[in-house]
Amino acid sequence: MMNTRKTVVGVMGSGAAATPEDCQMAYNLGKLIAGEGWVLLNGGRPAGVMEASARGAREKGGLTVGVLPGTGGDQASPYIDIAIVTGMGDARNNINVLSSDIIVALPGGAGTISEIALALKNGKRVILLKFDTGTLFNKYRDLKQLIIAGTPEEAVPIIKKELLLQAVKK
Amino acid sequence: MMNTRKTVVGVMGSGAAATPEDCQMAYNLGKLIAGEGWVLLNGGRPAGVMEASARGAREKGGLTVGVLPGTGGDQASPYIDIAIVTGMGDARNNINVLSSDIIVALPGGAGTISEIALALKNGKRVILLKFDTGTLFNKYRDLKQLIIAGTPEEAVPIIKKELLLQAVKK
Amino acid sequence: MMNTRKTVVGVMGSGAAATPEDCQMAYNLGKLIAGEGWVLLNGGRPAGVMEASARGAREKGGLTVGVLPGTGGDQASPYIDIAIVTGMGDARNNINVLSSDIIVALPGGAGTISEIALALKNGKRVILLKFDTGTLFNKYRDLKQLIIAGTPEEAVPIIKKELLLQAVKK
Amino acid sequence: MMNTRKTVVGVMGSGAAATPEDCQMAYNLGKLIAGEGWVLLNGGRPAGVMEASARGAREKGGLTVGVLPGTGGDQASPYIDIAIVTGMGDARNNINVLSSDIIVALPGGAGTISEIALALKNGKRVILLKFDTGTLFNKYRDLKQLIIAGTPEEAVPIIKKELLLQAVKK
Repeated sequence: MMNTRKTVVGVMGSGAAATPEDCQMAYNLGKLIAGEGWVLLNGGRPAGVMEASARGAREKGGLTVGVLPGTGGDQASPYIDIAIVTGMGDARNNINVLSSDIIVALPGGAGTISEIALALKNGKRVILLKFDTGTLFNKYRDLKQLIIAGTPEEAVPIIKKELLLQAVKK
Repeated sequence: MMNTRKTVVGVMGSGAAATPEDCQMAYNLGKLIAGEGWVLLNGGRPAGVMEASARGAREKGGLTVGVLPGTGGDQASPYIDIAIVTGMGDARNNINVLSSDIIVALPGGAGTISEIALALKNGKRVILLKFDTGTLFNKYRDLKQLIIAGTPEEAVPIIKKELLLQAVKK
Repeated sequence: MMNTRKTVVGVMGSGAAATPEDCQMAYNLGKLIAGEGWVLLNGGRPAGVMEASARGAREKGGLTVGVLPGTGGDQASPYIDIAIVTGMGDARNNINVLSSDIIVALPGGAGTISEIALALKNGKRVILLKFDTGTLFNKYRDLKQLIIAGTPEEAVPIIKKELLLQAVKK
Repeated sequence: MMNTRKTVVGVMGSGAAATPEDCQMAYNLGKLIAGEGWVLLNGGRPAGVMEASARGAREKGGLTVGVLPGTGGDQASPYIDIAIVTGMGDARNNINVLSSDIIVALPGGAGTISEIALALKNGKRVILLKFDTGTLFNKYRDLKQLIIAGTPEEAVPIIKKELLLQAVKK
């Protein structure tokens, strides 16, 4: 039997502190992800990059998964199709990255940085989208595990290439 | 904007220890869940009630979510569409129940019992399908939070009624 | 170098719903555990069996560890020496049992039942102290993994014997 | 009744990748922490900063708590007194920081960075000991939530001052 498990792209970034530009970028990225037939996964809350990326994906007919920190599914953004309710606060950040085939990180605060770090530690590829993390993760940049993209449109072919490499390895 | 979050029905029960009868029942239940347009959520592994219920749902064109205990999405049953990779072992049982709008428990061992207990503690409705838990949860049976069903066909109208009650409460 | 890791005895049971008799039994058990030089581990909250067992252990000069469901150490009972703050709600029940060398379960509700089930699933020995769980765990009773005790004084030699068996196996 | 909950200082840093200099620094820090009567908490494994800091604390007669990622207490360093067994991999990093009254971070990789980020997000004070995190956490440095120390001896009075401030706030 053919395994038809869906490809999941995780999108991380600021919640309430997101700028309008970041939200626009997240919205565009969500649309592009849905356009490729990939599932969009994020932190699920109705704020910032989470809300905007889910809205973009949904408006393009895509499927959205939100991994929530709280105990109620009603805390999800209305653009989330499937709410995974963890009740475990920021410890859920590790689930976000483990559940994603690849991660795109937009500008964010300490929560987003923790997700980038947990992703890299677990061998996941991370694409930084307009997010300057300084010198901290240089080792992973040298290994091409951390990749820089300037626009959502630039991120898509990088994701495609990485997914292809993952498929070849299996 | 209309919230179109999907209804999630959790299906719990034995893994490798499941009998052929239990697997048949799980398969039929999966088909019925998908037939109603509900998402089926389970523990995601390729064994017993998990595999059979996911297979039933998928053959009926439904969407399946597997919440995995391990760290790799490749540990999912091939009938799982979306793998939530927790890497947290049995602690993920709490996520299974929090993420389900209602839970159906088929015969199972200690893992399934822990899920029933966690679900009841968190105010979730649980339908026991051919699973005799003795006197242990009598308090919840009296409160109609724990409900008995004899067949998958009997479980469906119970789920419908409970989902309606939940919608009214909101 | 000699490993001097301390032996940890987990004590589970009702929170606010505990009867005065159960609390007295928990208090006595806590004293006995401390008297043997064992660390007492429980759910850490200032209620019922948790509070009473920690108080007993502390009054006897013992060390107490509370594994809290919430995000603040100030939610611990004042009789807890070391607060492990999980912020993950009932999913912390799995940590309670994995961290205990052996578990004693006093009468409790769904939370306690989930801990018994998770402990048995993970191969831990569980001593039931005046807690009738019906027929549900008969398989584990037959395997002597689940053991019945009538009083705290009866539980202590059972714990000693089991710890000795564990030491021999290593 | 007086609350005698112990003060917990979390020590984070590299595992197997730690340099001899970092291990020496961790060892000295562990001794100083124990000398003040504080409990030392770390990730519990027998490697690098974890092992060295626990050894220092224990040699000075202090109490050590290790929050382990795996499912077995036997995976702890022999210098750990109390093993908290989470079975949840890197998601346990969030427990490390929530359970610490203050955190000291020595040079480390992605795991350590995730702990710094999670700590800052949860309002914890973090002292960087010879760990240059670049510009990434500048916001928290400006808020004095992230503090720089050059030696273990320098870190101790900073910890004392911060614990005093926390006590005053309560």
